[in-house]
Amino acid sequence: MINKVLIANRGEIAARVIRTCKKLGIKTVAVYSEADQKAPFVSMADESYLLGPPRVQESYLNTEKIIEIAKDADVDAIHPGYGFLSENGGFTEKCEQAGIIFIGPSAEVMEKMGSKIAAREAMEKAGVPVVPGTNGAVASADEAVGIARKIGYPVMLKASAGGGGIGMQVVQSDDELIKAFESNSKRAHTFFGDGAMFMEKKLDNARHIEIQLLADNYGNAIHLYERECSIQRRNQKVIEEAPSSFISEKTRTKMGKAAVKAAETLGYTSAGTIEFLVDEHEKFYFLEMNTRIQVEHPVTEEITGVDIVEQQIRIADGKELSFKQSEVTIDGHAIEARIYAEDPETFFPSPGHISVFELPTGKFIRNEVAVTADFDVTPFYDPMIGKLIVKGKDRAEAITSIKNALLDYKVEGIKTNIPMLLKVLDHEKFKNGETTTAFVDHYYLPAVKTN
Amino acid sequence: MINKVLIANRGEIAARVIRTCKKLGIKTVAVYSEADQKAPFVSMADESYLLGPPRVQESYLNTEKIIEIAKDADVDAIHPGYGFLSENGGFTEKCEQAGIIFIGPSAEVMEKMGSKIAAREAMEKAGVPVVPGTNGAVASADEAVGIARKIGYPVMLKASAGGGGIGMQVVQSDDELIKAFESNSKRAHTFFGDGAMFMEKKLDNARHIEIQLLADNYGNAIHLYERECSIQRRNQKVIEEAPSSFISEKTRTKMGKAAVKAAETLGYTSAGTIEFLVDEHEKFYFLEMNTRIQVEHPVTEEITGVDIVEQQIRIADGKELSFKQSEVTIDGHAIEARIYAEDPETFFPSPGHISVFELPTGKFIRNEVAVTADFDVTPFYDPMIGKLIVKGKDRAEAITSIKNALLDYKVEGIKTNIPMLLKVLDHEKFKNGETTTAFVDHYYLPAVKTN
Repeated sequence: MINKVLIANRGEIAARVIRTCKKLGIKTVAVYSEADQKAPFVSMADESYLLGPPRVQESYLNTEKIIEIAKDADVDAIHPGYGFLSENGGFTEKCEQAGIIFIGPSAEVMEKMGSKIAAREAMEKAGVPVVPGTNGAVASADEAVGIARKIGYPVMLKASAGGGGIGMQVVQSDDELIKAFESNSKRAHTFFGDGAMFMEKKLDNARHIEIQLLADNYGNAIHLYERECSIQRRNQKVIEEAPSSFISEKTRTKMGKAAVKAAETLGYTSAGTIEFLVDEHEKFYFLEMNTRIQVEHPVTEEITGVDIVEQQIRIADGKELSFKQSEVTIDGHAIEARIYAEDPETFFPSPGHISVFELPTGKFIRNEVAVTADFDVTPFYDPMIGKLIVKGKDRAEAITSIKNALLDYKVEGIKTNIPMLLKVLDHEKFKNGETTTAFVDHYYLPAVKTN
Repeated sequence: MINKVLIANRGEIAARVIRTCKKLGIKTVAVYSEADQKAPFVSMADESYLLGPPRVQESYLNTEKIIEIAKDADVDAIHPGYGFLSENGGFTEKCEQAGIIFIGPSAEVMEKMGSKIAAREAMEKAGVPVVPGTNGAVASADEAVGIARKIGYPVMLKASAGGGGIGMQVVQSDDELIKAFESNSKRAHTFFGDGAMFMEKKLDNARHIEIQLLADNYGNAIHLYERECSIQRRNQKVIEEAPSSFISEKTRTKMGKAAVKAAETLGYTSAGTIEFLVDEHEKFYFLEMNTRIQVEHPVTEEITGVDIVEQQIRIADGKELSFKQSEVTIDGHAIEARIYAEDPETFFPSPGHISVFELPTGKFIRNEVAVTADFDVTPFYDPMIGKLIVKGKDRAEAITSIKNALLDYKVEGIKTNIPMLLKVLDHEKFKNGETTTAFVDHYYLPAVKTN
């Protein structure tokens, strides 16, 4: 029985988890670094404990300290949020050993999905289409060239253990591939202690569309439809929406079924997301699985009415899913914009002191925030300061309303990406739903450069 | 065709109307007094004009000036919000004469519903039950005593032209009635220029339950179900919810039908509300009709998904209702709490300088606010500084969530009624749905006095 939860995270997601715990009558424990003493999530929790200095190794990645606090505070479970320890099988096991429930899937499935090669193999076994490419590590640059000629250029080279774009490169020719193979393998080895590389065909005009899953411990798995997250900068999502305006009802059904099948085959439990690339002909290919709550989960909550964090807690608490696939329906259209402390033209983080922080208000406006007025954004963590989620009766209304809400968002003292978000939302191609993962590179960056 | 709207109001409702206009692509004009220069609604509008000094006669009730600005700014329509000029037939006519659309019903129906006696007669004609009492003005204290003996004490004495509790009194006996008749008639004459009095039976354990209506210019009238607004202090609502947890499905249907019938009989157009008193046996009686948007309209929007301000504008623009009664359904449960700058124990206004103002955030939290940090709440207007609206999957969840959100509401520099709201929401009787209009007097005030 989960009666007290420690949130091993910071920022908006810590606040968001605390709110659902409060709704469920569950006591909450926050842990925080010296840089976060004044953050909203700290004062929202029933109890809060200092982890240590700002550096993540000494604070939000300090598993020893976190487990120690969890034991002292006598919590029943730990919610990892996203990032930090959320996809760390070792931490999951440490929780188990300490007799604390980890709110998420098993360490085993987490580790499997953490390896890009193992994940591809698992998906093929479940009958989920994967991007044409190698199923195992490529032994050498020579072997890579042979494979590239077979699947056709352009080809995406990826580090098996990669993340955050490290070890990833698109190559167009044999020469380029040979050079890229050596250098990326070396970088991957340096960063992740594993130089294994694999290759995939680079899809043209692809969209990033992902399926939200929920699965309990009794073999019940359902999906909550899709999110389209094609608007990205530096390989990171900035605007997400649900449902996708691109895929047909038929594709929606097929993708949902494929994702549920994958969850069933994996024996997956908790909330999770299967990310797909979808090409211009609505063919979809497995990209990766995230075995945690995602930043963009609120757009799904807005259109389905399901509280995904509540479901995570219920499942971890050994409860059966309380609704069926047929009971999940889509109402309206939701868009999320991530507000970053960053330069809107270079996308570089812009830490500093926030002097004024005023949120947009009104109907169908949802704010999830990490900061407050008179708060220092430090360079130690991801510079996201908040998320703005807006719901409309349709996509056009949602776009208009989120633009108006962004104009009401008042942040003084630091630079934010709000001007960039407004430009994207105002772009004809965006309004027409012509959103591919190359959107920002194609339509935004040139505009900035020539202006 | 409405392309530009002047909002003849201030505070949260002005901001709320501006937001819907923006959503619809309509330009907005704000008017404001010297006391409101820094209010959020002023900077949100496309254009804004100073009306004059803070006193309402020189600002928000200054019809000459408002019409003049409307003409100069070339607006197509005026939205009156609530209070101020919203139920002033003379102003409606002045708008018409100036060729400006008044967003609301006709002056005629407005004036009729503004007279408590004429309204009672109209309702009886429409077959809507009215509280037992007099249909015309009572000529003398003697006549009053005769009537009171017939309908039975306690009896409510009311000024026909009354408002804000002035000229209203509950009397228990002949002696009390004779004294009250003379003094209230005199006060009503002084305040409203009309001393006409009428009488109604005072119902025991009554609840205030009202039906939201929408009617277009083509004879289509529908309702958006009910709001229960029984939690009042000083005859003013402070907590409202939808749907009512008290009435049965059968009563809900009957009340909705009665209200729609009334709208049809009156030839009513625009949004409007029929307020009922409902006794412990679910018998309902007409109380009054509000021919404008109401403070508590958001709870209805949250459970039905309908934007009521959008509907007002569409109707004023000559459009037909775009949905039918059968398409309006209830989803979940919504509660609104009005946040006042007032002493939580005496309910007296507590104007002053707001130094810190931080809003609760998250899923299903809606803020409508009149103020910002570094803002002066003046004694010139209603001291409501904001409304907090929360939606839950059911009433229990909504109560938990609004309590948590109120705990996150941070206002420094002035007193607010948040402690009072929390006490009410936390009361066993409230949680059990035992909410009558006497709730605050019975359960809250004694607790305050003895603490």
